[in-house]
Amino acid sequence: MTIESVSEKRSHGGVQGVYKHASAATGTEMTFSVFVPDHEPDAQLPVLWYLSGLTCTHANVTEKGEFRAACAEHGIIFVAPDTSPRGEGVADDAEGAYDFGLGAGFYVNATQQPFSKHYKMRDYIERELPEVVAANFPVDMARQGITGHSMGGHGALTISLRNSGRFKSTSAFSPIVSPLNCPWGHKALGGYLGEDKAAWAEYDACALIDGGARLPDLLVDQGDADNFLAEQLKTHLLVEACDRAGQKAAIRMQPGYDHSYYFISTFMAEHVAWHAERLKA
Amino acid sequence: MTIESVSEKRSHGGVQGVYKHASAATGTEMTFSVFVPDHEPDAQLPVLWYLSGLTCTHANVTEKGEFRAACAEHGIIFVAPDTSPRGEGVADDAEGAYDFGLGAGFYVNATQQPFSKHYKMRDYIERELPEVVAANFPVDMARQGITGHSMGGHGALTISLRNSGRFKSTSAFSPIVSPLNCPWGHKALGGYLGEDKAAWAEYDACALIDGGARLPDLLVDQGDADNFLAEQLKTHLLVEACDRAGQKAAIRMQPGYDHSYYFISTFMAEHVAWHAERLKA
Repeated sequence: MTIESVSEKRSHGGVQGVYKHASAATGTEMTFSVFVPDHEPDAQLPVLWYLSGLTCTHANVTEKGEFRAACAEHGIIFVAPDTSPRGEGVADDAEGAYDFGLGAGFYVNATQQPFSKHYKMRDYIERELPEVVAANFPVDMARQGITGHSMGGHGALTISLRNSGRFKSTSAFSPIVSPLNCPWGHKALGGYLGEDKAAWAEYDACALIDGGARLPDLLVDQGDADNFLAEQLKTHLLVEACDRAGQKAAIRMQPGYDHSYYFISTFMAEHVAWHAERLKA
Repeated sequence: MTIESVSEKRSHGGVQGVYKHASAATGTEMTFSVFVPDHEPDAQLPVLWYLSGLTCTHANVTEKGEFRAACAEHGIIFVAPDTSPRGEGVADDAEGAYDFGLGAGFYVNATQQPFSKHYKMRDYIERELPEVVAANFPVDMARQGITGHSMGGHGALTISLRNSGRFKSTSAFSPIVSPLNCPWGHKALGGYLGEDKAAWAEYDACALIDGGARLPDLLVDQGDADNFLAEQLKTHLLVEACDRAGQKAAIRMQPGYDHSYYFISTFMAEHVAWHAERLKA
């Protein structure tokens, strides 16, 4: 549970920190960022997990996400993990592609060699990192929300759907809604889990909803000028799954927005406020 | 006056663009960013110039400055130029230091070889870029504000002080307040202007105020945990110059903040609102 501070910067009245620790789940050193807003000395604050997309580390949202003003306003701790194990001996895509291997852990526990050695991002995000954060920061683990972008939106949705009751609030920015039905998903889940698609369903938000998993509510924003919408993200599959299941959800198409942090930062404050409403003590 | 679009992204209801053009002032291609908030079709909006600090390009504040929400709220166009000429044939510091040459134009017109060929950032920012922006964006040039960070805070202060009446509002984040009295200033002004310090005074905010230049008002934020405060920034010299001159100013020391964008972004919305109040039609 020991962490090492990489940097701590005062920002928006709180502290934006970056930390690293030896992860038992991945067998590597892992880096993550935490924003702790100003708070009463003995307060325990709700926590919002943000899972990043392909190619990202903790740094992208930490620098460009524009979440601190809203988290300071609402008194929410914001945690941003990395997207894969990294370091010497960690296997990567054979051609170094951006959509598999380093920066592309897809929040799964890999079962296939050579990835099964370190790519245990499901265990890391679901089990280990929450313990590390609970041990080191003033969080109220009874009040957790989760969100993410693209591959991280997929992570947020599937982790929340699989862990019924753990998260009081779940949202996503331009999520991959069904890895079973897109090239990114086929490559990643095939590579990490093998070709038996029965093993993929627990990593597919639409399949989880079809299988009976439910959330109290759901907020999704998706840009309609997003280059990945038609081939990879396929938001309509989530709309249809929610409709079939009677799952309460606000899935909003945002005109003119693309897949970048210029989009995410636009709607970040609104997402934080939406989570805050559901994370009240 | 022709510009080429490098990228345009929808963000916070407006458009965050990056553009390049052939600059007559510097004899190079120059890149700058412009955020245009959503507006009525024939509206002319006030413009806020943001001058960046050492090592930066237009990109730093564009990605990390957290200005768009506030500019969208107040209907202000935000322009961020580069900090020096760049490209083949542009002289740099002999040792490639970060505080002179590329990324360190100091907003002066260099008179010394080999820098005098391209380092005409004063002409570029004071004369050419305003014409380019006026010709290509819906700006009301009767309503201009200016701000900047560190070297760019120096730029904002000195440009506004030298051009009485042009800017209705002037602010700065952790500015270099007196190049005559700090190592960064000695190196830069010595290198660009030569050792005759009589030529330096028009690039020194404190000297300009002592010489009679005035602003309608001034807002400065400075972190007290800024590593550069004691040796380079010397905020107290500006406080003293304003006191001597009876110059109206709010110069605020912000406890715990450093020199980074974690500091700038914290106070950006407040600066934009302060400018907006003074840029009303």
